[in-house]
Amino acid sequence: MQIKVSPIADYSLVQFQLEEGEVLAPESLKEIVFPDVEYSKGVVLSGRAPIWLFGAATHHFHPSKWVATHDPRLGYVVVQTHCQEYKVGQVIQPQ
Amino acid sequence: MQIKVSPIADYSLVQFQLEEGEVLAPESLKEIVFPDVEYSKGVVLSGRAPIWLFGAATHHFHPSKWVATHDPRLGYVVVQTHCQEYKVGQVIQPQ
Repeated sequence: MQIKVSPIADYSLVQFQLEEGEVLAPESLKEIVFPDVEYSKGVVLSGRAPIWLFGAATHHFHPSKWVATHDPRLGYVVVQTHCQEYKVGQVIQPQ
Repeated sequence: MQIKVSPIADYSLVQFQLEEGEVLAPESLKEIVFPDVEYSKGVVLSGRAPIWLFGAATHHFHPSKWVATHDPRLGYVVVQTHCQEYKVGQVIQPQ
């Protein structure tokens, strides 16, 4: 798996990129190095990855201004926040 | 959606129970009242629910001893922890 980070407007887009057919083992959580992001901005977590990876990443990026997960049907759903502009449950359209 | 809590050994099993065909809107995150759990124990999050609900719940239960998400193929995968006995990436078999 690769983790790609793209700075976009006021958030960092963190994309989990698994190879075709790649299956991630939970043990890999010990080794995964999440990329550096600017905590003064939000973080969007995206990619076809197991729920536990999103869980671990949500926790890891907790110091960020806000964290959203990408729901392909809806957009970016804010799941935690430290600011007034973005509320939990708010949906942000991908830019 | 109903949220069921079952105390099991040293963790609380938190199950998201959606009705057949029920689709949860992100806006519901504002209203969801997560159940009380004992923070001295772990929390396992389980159920067929959107990733953003798991993300919000992972954050909500952060004060707990540890938090795991239920991967039906594997078991309970620890995604955050405040103790030595349970490590991130560890898989616990359901009891």
